[in-house]
Amino acid sequence: MTRVLLTAFEPFGGDSVNPSERAVADVVAVHPPGVEVVSSRLSCVFSVALDELTAAVARTEPDVVICTGQAGGRPDVTVERIAINVDDARIPDNAGRQPVDRPVVEGGPAAYFSTLPVKACVAAARAAGVPASVSQTAGTFVCNHVFYGLMHLMATQRPHMRGGFVHLPYAPEQVTDRAQPSLPVTLAAEGLRAVVTAAASRTEDIVVAGGATH
Amino acid sequence: MTRVLLTAFEPFGGDSVNPSERAVADVVAVHPPGVEVVSSRLSCVFSVALDELTAAVARTEPDVVICTGQAGGRPDVTVERIAINVDDARIPDNAGRQPVDRPVVEGGPAAYFSTLPVKACVAAARAAGVPASVSQTAGTFVCNHVFYGLMHLMATQRPHMRGGFVHLPYAPEQVTDRAQPSLPVTLAAEGLRAVVTAAASRTEDIVVAGGATH
Amino acid sequence: MTRVLLTAFEPFGGDSVNPSERAVADVVAVHPPGVEVVSSRLSCVFSVALDELTAAVARTEPDVVICTGQAGGRPDVTVERIAINVDDARIPDNAGRQPVDRPVVEGGPAAYFSTLPVKACVAAARAAGVPASVSQTAGTFVCNHVFYGLMHLMATQRPHMRGGFVHLPYAPEQVTDRAQPSLPVTLAAEGLRAVVTAAASRTEDIVVAGGATH
Amino acid sequence: MTRVLLTAFEPFGGDSVNPSERAVADVVAVHPPGVEVVSSRLSCVFSVALDELTAAVARTEPDVVICTGQAGGRPDVTVERIAINVDDARIPDNAGRQPVDRPVVEGGPAAYFSTLPVKACVAAARAAGVPASVSQTAGTFVCNHVFYGLMHLMATQRPHMRGGFVHLPYAPEQVTDRAQPSLPVTLAAEGLRAVVTAAASRTEDIVVAGGATH
Repeated sequence: MTRVLLTAFEPFGGDSVNPSERAVADVVAVHPPGVEVVSSRLSCVFSVALDELTAAVARTEPDVVICTGQAGGRPDVTVERIAINVDDARIPDNAGRQPVDRPVVEGGPAAYFSTLPVKACVAAARAAGVPASVSQTAGTFVCNHVFYGLMHLMATQRPHMRGGFVHLPYAPEQVTDRAQPSLPVTLAAEGLRAVVTAAASRTEDIVVAGGATH
Repeated sequence: MTRVLLTAFEPFGGDSVNPSERAVADVVAVHPPGVEVVSSRLSCVFSVALDELTAAVARTEPDVVICTGQAGGRPDVTVERIAINVDDARIPDNAGRQPVDRPVVEGGPAAYFSTLPVKACVAAARAAGVPASVSQTAGTFVCNHVFYGLMHLMATQRPHMRGGFVHLPYAPEQVTDRAQPSLPVTLAAEGLRAVVTAAASRTEDIVVAGGATH
Repeated sequence: MTRVLLTAFEPFGGDSVNPSERAVADVVAVHPPGVEVVSSRLSCVFSVALDELTAAVARTEPDVVICTGQAGGRPDVTVERIAINVDDARIPDNAGRQPVDRPVVEGGPAAYFSTLPVKACVAAARAAGVPASVSQTAGTFVCNHVFYGLMHLMATQRPHMRGGFVHLPYAPEQVTDRAQPSLPVTLAAEGLRAVVTAAASRTEDIVVAGGATH
Repeated sequence: MTRVLLTAFEPFGGDSVNPSERAVADVVAVHPPGVEVVSSRLSCVFSVALDELTAAVARTEPDVVICTGQAGGRPDVTVERIAINVDDARIPDNAGRQPVDRPVVEGGPAAYFSTLPVKACVAAARAAGVPASVSQTAGTFVCNHVFYGLMHLMATQRPHMRGGFVHLPYAPEQVTDRAQPSLPVTLAAEGLRAVVTAAASRTEDIVVAGGATH
């Protein structure tokens, strides 16, 4: 049975909830058939989050790791294509750190592609009735930091492990008075379950367009 | 007991569903306590929709009428403030009609304000956990047409009746591959129930800002 | 020769410039042939702005009045279709006033349509190479306040005068670090000149779609 | 004297102009003091564009290469941070090619960072009054293809050359009836001149935040 480690983030940037935490809890509670799902909650703090991730991987020895986080303002579940080797924080993290143009890993490659079947994951979420798309950037904050750190860990120490990152929209209750796009946690979790299933069951991706002109 | 007539629209513009139909059906099935809810489905056709509305009002003799429709692209439930006396269609309606700069009612006033307690309706939806806001324009298509026609009917023939219009976002299943904001029908219905309750229980509005700088 | 009064607003909401002031100055300096252009600057203060407008109209006795203001975030020149009888301020005006759901004119009609040939004005701006469109709402702040007050003045005391409102985008120098749409003042002025010409030379509008589905 | 090669793209995707062509022509005509500017026009065709770029580099032997292209919908001049090793075309290129998830360079690294001083370039454009920002993704179409190919060429064969990519908004005349953000070519050129000056005069970047939370 494939073991999947899902990680989520604590709230940040003034929000009191993080939809990733609740969506991951939902997937752990009702996981896809044939897959073992374990989870871990990461601090929204540069470097600390990566230490926590590394410890969770060592503790759970998963086959697949899918880190998740909040992408406030995006309307759909986005499966990230690539992690880049830079920290550039517009806002302080939860420990007040605000690195600018620092590498996630000194001497690491400029970027790592997700080793999830990104297009298949998007297609699976859509087939489950959940709006989803490929994203060409995970930003330069703690989400990308963890995504890059995960891919570097796998590339250097865990060659048989596969992994990637999925961003979730705001939950409706976060934006009742903000006129911002949202997706209920139950629906985000449904999409995440589809992503987990697709990621656990196939290594080859499907060939469908999912790019951006810019 | 207050009787509320809810109207919804059939699909239009190439969509195969209209979230207003399903949200209204949900509110009829599970209506707020102390309120009788009846409903009617309107064609997305200029003039025909208004005849249907007039017939439904005559048939059901409601105290309050809340017409609903789809506002694809908006992220939240929007309670409309004002109906304007113009039809100006960017796309053809479901009968192929595409009026440009024609009055809804020849000789009617330029506009009617909603007689729902708009701000209280928004506050009630938000309190129910549903993203909501006031909208300053219902457009110039069939939604505004029906809204204006309703207000004119009440102003000229049904002075004791109150009414207005509520726009609902796309349902997620309409936009799985479109990267557009959405709101599940169950949540839209929850918001609509809150609006119905607020509209049925009070005539005076609350005083909270809900405007736009432009 | 047709005399056109153009009004502009002082800066507001924390901005140090208002593109409407500079665009109007540009049109006064280089006005369209066959048209006399006079101008007036209005305070961004409820009620005071209307007194200033009324005085400017009495002083200049124009044939056409076109009030202009800033619509930060809109990408193009927008010719407003309708003014509504409500003040609902999200932010304080320049005198700290923040009315909520108050009529512009007690007892006035719900709305007035612009008496400019709105579609012809948009077409003229586009023909001059300037992005432009019809807007279905001028908001509920001081711009709409002045627009409504103007139309009420004309409806009640100046039946031969025609008028309306045009919103201009941010100037680029206002948003160098904000990733917001903008339009240079020279281009906004070019669009405004086309609007002035169209407004001065015709009373009948052209019939082309310019509406919104919502 | 530093020699800068600027490249621009031919129109694509149904547009009849490409603002990059005209902005580059403007910078060639009026170039910054102390800098020699040469230019080349690239086809919007996968692979062909890269051959053309390679030939232009061989022909002009520049110190710095700045490729430019159109990013329709973006409101400001964006200096790209990173090029990624993937072609994924949502629309066909000008030769009808539509690669999906193919590497730009087989066996190349996942990504290359721009070797321009990205933050200094953005600061210079802003100081010149031109809206500008850092972009975390150049997309996956021909722009990113050329950007990646350029960086690969320099990394493998031209270690002393520096380069990067700058995206320009639509020109106003492209979107007069589309309600899309735009920037006049003269202003885009002004921003590009500032970028050229910054890129030619310094190799170290400044340390200011320019990241994205996602």
